[in-house]
Amino acid sequence: MVLHIVHPEKREVKMERAEWGYFTVELTDAVPGMRYLYIPDGEGSFPDPASHHQPEGVHGPSEVIDHCTHTWRDTKWRNLPLQDLVLYELHVGTFTPEGTFESVIPKLSELTEIGINALEIMPVAQFPGNRNWGYDGVFPYAVQNSYGGPSGLKKLVDACHAKGIAVYLDVVYNHLGPEGNYFGKFGPYFTDTCSTPWGDAINFDGPHADGVREYYSNNPLYWLEHYHLDGLRLDAIHTIHDSSAVSFWELMQNKIQSFTEQAGKPFYLIAESDLNDPKVVKRPEAGGFGFSAQWLDDFHHSLYVLLDKKGKSRYEDFGKMEQLAKAYTDGFVHSGEYVSFRKKKFGRSSASVPGNHFVNFVQNHDQVGNRVRGERLSVLVGHEGLKLAAAATLLAPYIPMLFMGEEYGEDAPFLYFVSHSDEKLIKAVQEGRKKEFAHYKTEGTFPDPQAEESFEKSKLQWQKRKQPKYQQLLKWHQKLIQLRRSLPALHNFNKVDLQAQPLGQEGLVLIR
Amino acid sequence: MVLHIVHPEKREVKMERAEWGYFTVELTDAVPGMRYLYIPDGEGSFPDPASHHQPEGVHGPSEVIDHCTHTWRDTKWRNLPLQDLVLYELHVGTFTPEGTFESVIPKLSELTEIGINALEIMPVAQFPGNRNWGYDGVFPYAVQNSYGGPSGLKKLVDACHAKGIAVYLDVVYNHLGPEGNYFGKFGPYFTDTCSTPWGDAINFDGPHADGVREYYSNNPLYWLEHYHLDGLRLDAIHTIHDSSAVSFWELMQNKIQSFTEQAGKPFYLIAESDLNDPKVVKRPEAGGFGFSAQWLDDFHHSLYVLLDKKGKSRYEDFGKMEQLAKAYTDGFVHSGEYVSFRKKKFGRSSASVPGNHFVNFVQNHDQVGNRVRGERLSVLVGHEGLKLAAAATLLAPYIPMLFMGEEYGEDAPFLYFVSHSDEKLIKAVQEGRKKEFAHYKTEGTFPDPQAEESFEKSKLQWQKRKQPKYQQLLKWHQKLIQLRRSLPALHNFNKVDLQAQPLGQEGLVLIR
Repeated sequence: MVLHIVHPEKREVKMERAEWGYFTVELTDAVPGMRYLYIPDGEGSFPDPASHHQPEGVHGPSEVIDHCTHTWRDTKWRNLPLQDLVLYELHVGTFTPEGTFESVIPKLSELTEIGINALEIMPVAQFPGNRNWGYDGVFPYAVQNSYGGPSGLKKLVDACHAKGIAVYLDVVYNHLGPEGNYFGKFGPYFTDTCSTPWGDAINFDGPHADGVREYYSNNPLYWLEHYHLDGLRLDAIHTIHDSSAVSFWELMQNKIQSFTEQAGKPFYLIAESDLNDPKVVKRPEAGGFGFSAQWLDDFHHSLYVLLDKKGKSRYEDFGKMEQLAKAYTDGFVHSGEYVSFRKKKFGRSSASVPGNHFVNFVQNHDQVGNRVRGERLSVLVGHEGLKLAAAATLLAPYIPMLFMGEEYGEDAPFLYFVSHSDEKLIKAVQEGRKKEFAHYKTEGTFPDPQAEESFEKSKLQWQKRKQPKYQQLLKWHQKLIQLRRSLPALHNFNKVDLQAQPLGQEGLVLIR
Repeated sequence: MVLHIVHPEKREVKMERAEWGYFTVELTDAVPGMRYLYIPDGEGSFPDPASHHQPEGVHGPSEVIDHCTHTWRDTKWRNLPLQDLVLYELHVGTFTPEGTFESVIPKLSELTEIGINALEIMPVAQFPGNRNWGYDGVFPYAVQNSYGGPSGLKKLVDACHAKGIAVYLDVVYNHLGPEGNYFGKFGPYFTDTCSTPWGDAINFDGPHADGVREYYSNNPLYWLEHYHLDGLRLDAIHTIHDSSAVSFWELMQNKIQSFTEQAGKPFYLIAESDLNDPKVVKRPEAGGFGFSAQWLDDFHHSLYVLLDKKGKSRYEDFGKMEQLAKAYTDGFVHSGEYVSFRKKKFGRSSASVPGNHFVNFVQNHDQVGNRVRGERLSVLVGHEGLKLAAAATLLAPYIPMLFMGEEYGEDAPFLYFVSHSDEKLIKAVQEGRKKEFAHYKTEGTFPDPQAEESFEKSKLQWQKRKQPKYQQLLKWHQKLIQLRRSLPALHNFNKVDLQAQPLGQEGLVLIR
């Protein structure tokens, strides 16, 4: 293994073989801003899998970062209790016209005004090009260059904390993106005993998995220590396969616990899980995965299909008022019954799980963006429907999350967009996307994920926020959040104190 | 789907499509002994995946069995408590010269005389040909024809119960054998999202898995109801992948519980697990798999390598007296440390798991048979070594298991043998076996798994039992088992009351 320095001056340094397959070298003249690659086997230079910054993108050199250069002003910040949050899912590239971390800062007051007190930032790990939802990231320790890199994110987090906003980051530990993925050159990061829908599965329990487990289990500590983040949202945890007696989750959470005990403030992990299994939020001692909370997709599905009858074609197993009632009283709507979409019996009851272990929403990047035309709820249901959706979500016994723009009824789409450089891959994404949606028989042209237009169209249109129609919805959200905060009954997460009574298929009485 | 009756007279009957992909037909003239196949798609007749008997082998027709024809004499039998057992692993084909269930019966007194009170019969699900360990079985509900089929097994179980012997059966739910495996013609039994070392993984959690889960979870009830078995040993449970919120284990065990509550006698499940994870024997409420006990391979490895220094080449991570001490005090020797063989950190402490959740042994079909020449311990260590091994095993705080012949120091090998009919498969098994053992640099000819000789050589030589050398060991086992039964300290499974103190690398003091 050779260290290949490319900036400020070119140089190659042979590295020493250390234990466990690692290589090391100590440089006395390394400086922040130095750019480097590795030459693993004499052929080809590749960026550092643990790179902290990829200033020239996924194919370019890694940069040495000095994390001490940012002077943090948030020394008094002690995080917010998870159950007090109103989360706001934010995609940096499309939140502002500039699409950068710093450009978010001037907008924060507009969010706090309506009561939002936590950002959940869609993945910022370096991805190919400058247009991506973030799930094609390939450097889980590097912050997207086009968003403003490490210093940009730090400024944003610091500004959030100054305004009383907690910051959660969406991280992807289940796969790496298809472009700029040089991990296979360095070690046994992948396994072929299982697969994910998005690429090779990560080797969490096979031979030589210890290094991989270290690599990923240290990642939360990195965000906590160097970026002062308050929590993470872990993408699709059900696609992480691990039969180890000490699971990756337990390993990771033990590390976080040691760290937070020292730091004196909590750090929360929210899972995206497609298991409908209460064990995700149970403690490891009780055989659980130990997450603080998990996304409650069933709440979205049951509420959305009632609001938009056409939604039935996307969520065939939903559409009954009793299901929405169950989403309130139990959590998981599918708790063991046969589910057509899955072609099997699915799930387990979460009736005994307190509501503060679930994050609920009626929109998110997936539910909006994974439609051919990326339609938000605002173009699918009328104004009264939006108001109902907001109330149903914000007055539920869960931790609510809004998708950026939802608070004023943004009607720009949130399309699927990428900016790959490999022609074959671009074609594959375009075709794959069409195939995925083939059964919806889309009319007209199919939006091109690779087109810059798809990205531009997906940006929030800030001028709308001041227009009466949108203002009305904004105030509505503000009022609901205020009610949620001020009425003790509305921040009671104990399900036993809640009743949800369907009025036929047209109404529901929610008593809290 | 067409029912294709081939005996006593040929006839085809169209079946009705029922719910969930099943087909049904009711015949008023069906009789025991009727033989049939199914024609799933107009082309080819195949035996019934749920066949109760394959009188002509894996490729032939299935036979209708009337389970009421056997008059059970064991009406007063109430099983034995698992922790009181001395298990005896028995391969029907090589236990007697005849290799049948019925031929085992006259030998039972010889086993009870030395204190054995439970058989663990290696798999009898119909396999190809008449020579097989049983792990290539393809009809989990059919009893091997060459062993004597359903009636033979019933007679054996009845005879065992009359003699106070409990009967456990080894069952394989993780894969189906390569020959005579027509399951793919009938339904989604397999999945390609995971794999096993022996063939396609069974579909326990994918689309249409419910039928597969029913098929396998009803299997224990079948053995319990129709064969009066007392428990099962489940093969390699770590190769069963299931991410369902209600696991296959829980589903299966709930069914067993309902059944045994009615039946008024317990039924035990013993797992073979390569996870070194105490959750295998924890209750489902605590996030466990709920098995009554599991095999403790680490006990074998640590004891064997101390008895036979050459064993180090097979079990590279063992060989220290402290490991044997840990096998006594804790159970799992590998409880989180790095294990060279696995190339990763492995396992979790089982120190808090009471000893009656583990089955220990110093020989079994795998540890003996998965050597090129199938050498038993009796040809690897001297007479005194065998006595030590027996004492170390039988006086441990675990449920002991002997491998047939071990009680008198049988020195015939237990080789790997098959009797496939497909030439390609025979070649593949022969080559695969050679490849598997390539790193042991075997000298001389490599035993041919397909050769009848490999099977014949593996049979117990009953005349030895009466010879002085063997008699001495037999009496030794008898005495040890008697001590185990009579001294309360020796059937105390509480680890807290046990001490194991190494005397350097040459000795160990076990205090119970």
